[in-house]
Amino acid sequence: MTLSPDVPTAAPRAAVRHRGSGNARPTAAGRALSVLDAFGPRHRCLSLSEIARRAGLTLPTAHRLTRELVNWGALERDSAGRYSVGLRLLELSALAPRGLELREAAFPHVEDLHQITRGNVQLAVRDGMQVVYVEAIRARVRNPVTSRVGDRWPMHATGTGLVLLAYSEPDFQEAVLRSPLERFNPMTVTDPAELRRTLAHIRQTGVAVARGQITMPDLVVAVPVLDPAGEVTAAISVVVETEGARPRELAAVLKQASRAITRALSPRR
Amino acid sequence: MTLSPDVPTAAPRAAVRHRGSGNARPTAAGRALSVLDAFGPRHRCLSLSEIARRAGLTLPTAHRLTRELVNWGALERDSAGRYSVGLRLLELSALAPRGLELREAAFPHVEDLHQITRGNVQLAVRDGMQVVYVEAIRARVRNPVTSRVGDRWPMHATGTGLVLLAYSEPDFQEAVLRSPLERFNPMTVTDPAELRRTLAHIRQTGVAVARGQITMPDLVVAVPVLDPAGEVTAAISVVVETEGARPRELAAVLKQASRAITRALSPRR
Repeated sequence: MTLSPDVPTAAPRAAVRHRGSGNARPTAAGRALSVLDAFGPRHRCLSLSEIARRAGLTLPTAHRLTRELVNWGALERDSAGRYSVGLRLLELSALAPRGLELREAAFPHVEDLHQITRGNVQLAVRDGMQVVYVEAIRARVRNPVTSRVGDRWPMHATGTGLVLLAYSEPDFQEAVLRSPLERFNPMTVTDPAELRRTLAHIRQTGVAVARGQITMPDLVVAVPVLDPAGEVTAAISVVVETEGARPRELAAVLKQASRAITRALSPRR
Repeated sequence: MTLSPDVPTAAPRAAVRHRGSGNARPTAAGRALSVLDAFGPRHRCLSLSEIARRAGLTLPTAHRLTRELVNWGALERDSAGRYSVGLRLLELSALAPRGLELREAAFPHVEDLHQITRGNVQLAVRDGMQVVYVEAIRARVRNPVTSRVGDRWPMHATGTGLVLLAYSEPDFQEAVLRSPLERFNPMTVTDPAELRRTLAHIRQTGVAVARGQITMPDLVVAVPVLDPAGEVTAAISVVVETEGARPRELAAVLKQASRAITRALSPRR
């Protein structure tokens, strides 16, 4: 049994370079940000020379900036002298209106979804041309593929991403469909024409359902979440094993949870 | 009914200035960090001039740094031109070994604690001379006091903080006890001698129990969480209404959950 997130079977962000990353930075603030960019899901703990190399900085510059980031709390230094991301960033990220604040409003309903469906549940928002998970609850099974808070994925290959793309402005949709669409497994749809049809169908039904096409053995169902003004602000998805899954029931439960999240986001609840 | 976090009835961090904050920053990277410092629980959404004022920067400098931080994803700009914290920081903070990674290992057990006790549950780590919540689940009741992921609190006034202080090295304990100990309500203990006795008792029993002394109508029970090497790495607490509460039972359930989290943190599970 390999329940998955609503994503392909690959490590997140491995193939997704963040829009802000890159080695050549003209400004001092940019060089400090490039130190932070050196960290990633496969690079959680780095030595000073690894930071310098990954950030494209000289060792003295990396040393000075790293010390400054440690003092501020963005990085932590362990007893072996290696660096990792610090809690000041968790504290700051909790202030993101589309991050932990949204998670806070959604949490009980996302938890209910997980309890009812026994599947993996994801809450995601659009950021640039990707989706970022602001909540992710995994089924308690041995699970080689993990979905985690903070994971960033391309839109065309995830349930939440397809929903958020379906409700995006047409110019943005076309920009995404014209960008390189990575194939994560043999079933990943990367043909713009086929994706356009999928998006139209999602807008008609209000639900994205994908069997196998996204994660091989699994079924993902995803729906939009509206803010109190009626705009699509996020998407939630459930991933369950395809065998025995009932997509219509899952869609109904998801729509119920989506409405509850919208109410929780409303200031006049 | 006013179930609270394991903290006093006051807004978090209002009285806690972060070690890295301050207006006079000599370096360019420091000025960029001071832009991020301008944001806080009561300042989630700021105009450019508010950022400049709070960061102690000129308007042109604030404008340049803010634009750079927006491009990188640390900040977002809404349609009204106001700024808030962006998702790139959530993505980065998910890499913090003592942040969302710890939360990930602890999550099912913290959720169980919440289901069994129906109380507020907090998972916290020490950062500087404070504790930071890396997980917080609130009871679903009207709750004027909130505990949120990323909240930062002084150690002497929280259940998790007292546990983490009790298991800290003696020099650190004395440094905390010599620092200004804020009184959040009439029951907050701020006398170093009394706190020393409390810490000794926590080390003897392995549990912190506080009734009223921390949050007025509530009972908080907190225990340490060990890492696989046997070091105290975090603390978990449950807050319930004092009436009808059974501290011994809560302590037993917490110790059980704590051991399960240690196992989940172990690489060879």
